[in-house]
Amino acid sequence: MERAGGARGLAEAGLGGGGESGVPAAGAVAAVLPAGGCGERLGGPTPKQFCPVLGRPLISYTLQALQRVSWIKDIVVAVTSENMDMMAAIVQRYRHQRVTLVEAGTTRHRSIFNGLKALAGDHPHSRLPTPTVVIIHDAVRPFVEEDVLASVVAAARDHGAAGAIRPLVSTVITPSADGCLEQSLDRAKHRASEMPQAFLFDVIYRAYCQCSDHDMEFGTECLHLALKYCHTKAKLVDGSPDLWKVTYKRDLYAMESIIKDKISQQICVVADTEEDAECIAFLQGLLKKELEVQGTSVTLCPNGQDLQKIILGDCYNFVCINMKNSDFRPPRQLLAGLASAAPSPFYPVAVVSVYFLDSQNVSLSEKMKEVMEMKDFAKEVKKQNVFFYGVLIHFPQFLTQKDKTFPSLWIFFTRKSSSFSGKLGSIDDRPKRSSYLDSALGFC
Amino acid sequence: MERAGGARGLAEAGLGGGGESGVPAAGAVAAVLPAGGCGERLGGPTPKQFCPVLGRPLISYTLQALQRVSWIKDIVVAVTSENMDMMAAIVQRYRHQRVTLVEAGTTRHRSIFNGLKALAGDHPHSRLPTPTVVIIHDAVRPFVEEDVLASVVAAARDHGAAGAIRPLVSTVITPSADGCLEQSLDRAKHRASEMPQAFLFDVIYRAYCQCSDHDMEFGTECLHLALKYCHTKAKLVDGSPDLWKVTYKRDLYAMESIIKDKISQQICVVADTEEDAECIAFLQGLLKKELEVQGTSVTLCPNGQDLQKIILGDCYNFVCINMKNSDFRPPRQLLAGLASAAPSPFYPVAVVSVYFLDSQNVSLSEKMKEVMEMKDFAKEVKKQNVFFYGVLIHFPQFLTQKDKTFPSLWIFFTRKSSSFSGKLGSIDDRPKRSSYLDSALGFC
Repeated sequence: MERAGGARGLAEAGLGGGGESGVPAAGAVAAVLPAGGCGERLGGPTPKQFCPVLGRPLISYTLQALQRVSWIKDIVVAVTSENMDMMAAIVQRYRHQRVTLVEAGTTRHRSIFNGLKALAGDHPHSRLPTPTVVIIHDAVRPFVEEDVLASVVAAARDHGAAGAIRPLVSTVITPSADGCLEQSLDRAKHRASEMPQAFLFDVIYRAYCQCSDHDMEFGTECLHLALKYCHTKAKLVDGSPDLWKVTYKRDLYAMESIIKDKISQQICVVADTEEDAECIAFLQGLLKKELEVQGTSVTLCPNGQDLQKIILGDCYNFVCINMKNSDFRPPRQLLAGLASAAPSPFYPVAVVSVYFLDSQNVSLSEKMKEVMEMKDFAKEVKKQNVFFYGVLIHFPQFLTQKDKTFPSLWIFFTRKSSSFSGKLGSIDDRPKRSSYLDSALGFC
Repeated sequence: MERAGGARGLAEAGLGGGGESGVPAAGAVAAVLPAGGCGERLGGPTPKQFCPVLGRPLISYTLQALQRVSWIKDIVVAVTSENMDMMAAIVQRYRHQRVTLVEAGTTRHRSIFNGLKALAGDHPHSRLPTPTVVIIHDAVRPFVEEDVLASVVAAARDHGAAGAIRPLVSTVITPSADGCLEQSLDRAKHRASEMPQAFLFDVIYRAYCQCSDHDMEFGTECLHLALKYCHTKAKLVDGSPDLWKVTYKRDLYAMESIIKDKISQQICVVADTEEDAECIAFLQGLLKKELEVQGTSVTLCPNGQDLQKIILGDCYNFVCINMKNSDFRPPRQLLAGLASAAPSPFYPVAVVSVYFLDSQNVSLSEKMKEVMEMKDFAKEVKKQNVFFYGVLIHFPQFLTQKDKTFPSLWIFFTRKSSSFSGKLGSIDDRPKRSSYLDSALGFC
């Protein structure tokens, strides 16, 4: 068993979501995450919990969701021995906190039991305190929210066990031995048992200790074990659709789109002059209307503290409008700031820097030298998950003209940004996209 | 009841998929598609079967999947009276064939019954022949393949009824009246009942005629009705994961990604010279390696028959490399050809036209005039779902140099094309994308 973790945690950095708001009344809470599956239903060689989504392994999203909840004191992850190093590297890279790795068993129940043992102090090297309540969650349900975690924990305190449920999407049937319909269950009388679930630690640990080999081998339901071995009737809590389990390739697609949607709703506009306030306000309005961006902020090139605040506010998209300068100093400062200020590389940061270049006054070949330098610099910051896109516009009349082509141009740039980290994959984006491409045509 | 349909069908156009290969032994087959639901689980105002996916309503994809199967002679769609006009417009616009619209009932079973009545000749204005076997499918399961349809139809002939099933993803439980766990079902002994299902027409029609009001109101399972009223034990057929039901917003995301994946695997490269064969072969290799394009074809500007063949081969992406010409005649011809040859506007067609412009020899302002004309032309063809993207490259040395920047440039263009109709939204695309943007920076 090894305790893994980077130097700074999300909770410490203030990203802890609801903080103490939903904290259960008394006693410590821990979580166990079985992650030893091989993901055979996904059809690829990589177990689904390690599949990259926007470049980051699925399980890292789930860990982030759990560690945002400050009252979950320990998170025990059960992984197979061959994936142990990879998992430790993920914890390191994404600076996950309060995470302990244990070896997975050959089945889901055995993996969970190994996790519980680490919390029970049965493991020789374990130094984890035994919690009052333990949450059991799936590594492949990345969108779990604090409110549902708080609900199952509260219900577990009262009832000994609790689990999230959802309505059935399909009717459930019983096949006969010869592959015919034996019985069809009334959909209204049944529910799908989802995750998270929570238990008084004593209840679930006692249940696992008594568990038969058959249960360990073929069982899938923790609530069932609590009922069978401890006569504890779990309280059922309605969960949200977001709790669904990433099972098939289509679920990875869906997950990616959901994340893109979330992180594309914030764009920070950076201008190098305060003089053109009217123009910036116009751009803000446009972003809201055309891209459904929920929040935008305007600032002169931010640094240090300011930058950290922006990132902590879940804003990963920057559009830099360079009106006054045609050199690359301002974006260089911003990129350097981002590379150091970003608290963790959870999502890629996209920076689109826009220049209006009057080719009658500036030598193009000189400019190209600078561009090449910026490309090298962009390669450097990319290693820290900061993606830099630069656009030069050769259009001498532009700065004086400000005609109707102006708005289309703005959309072009901002959409480029969100194409990377957001909107381009989303539904009914097509008509908008074609219009920006049309207008881009005239300016390439 | 109205018979809807455009002038030319997919079957007639030769797009009928497996043709007669999987045709059941004897007797006509028809399909009933209940589409009267309000899609409350999706959370939007539009019923999910009418939600646009890449600009096209979901139900149109399902109809396309059914009408590709030439041995399905009639497709009866049950829609609410308020959506009747919209549905007729969809059938018209996407040239769906063999489709008859009937009014939906207040529940799923009532809608299906209305569809069956139309096939039984009970409807006063019905002129549809009564089939031997009827398929019942969901409007929101767009990826149904001919093989599973043939399987359920064959099994229905033998057993009277048949339906596709899938393993359960979650454990199914029975809640008690006070919201606690009553019982947990053994996941291995149960299955999810999916669609399509098929029945001997007499069996399912007799079942519906005897059906109680309670069944009509609260029932969800056609197989159950056949069992209950006709003692027909349905044969259960293993279905593929693709049969899943679009239920939540995330399913729309997944569906969009799957379609993009499919239609981005074919790119047709059009060159205006045969001289540079080596260069084109290089581009083909690159497309395969970098974009995982499964098929590419090269041709001098195709027209008429050739173009129709390309489109019928499910290729909707064109990259035109203009080496010899710097005028816009070749893409104009291609666009005009595409606009007339496309058998139906199922998917958007993307054309990326690339020019290498030596600004030392050509006047930029003159070129801009041409560009503006092309923009107007692009607007015209867009109405026929053909999207034209043009890229001019100002780089005098380019044609002689052919250095290492060359491949990056190609990727840039082709990726632009697939960004529209394919790859940009897909998983682990990010690193590639950043590299093309890097290289594009030097050439804007």
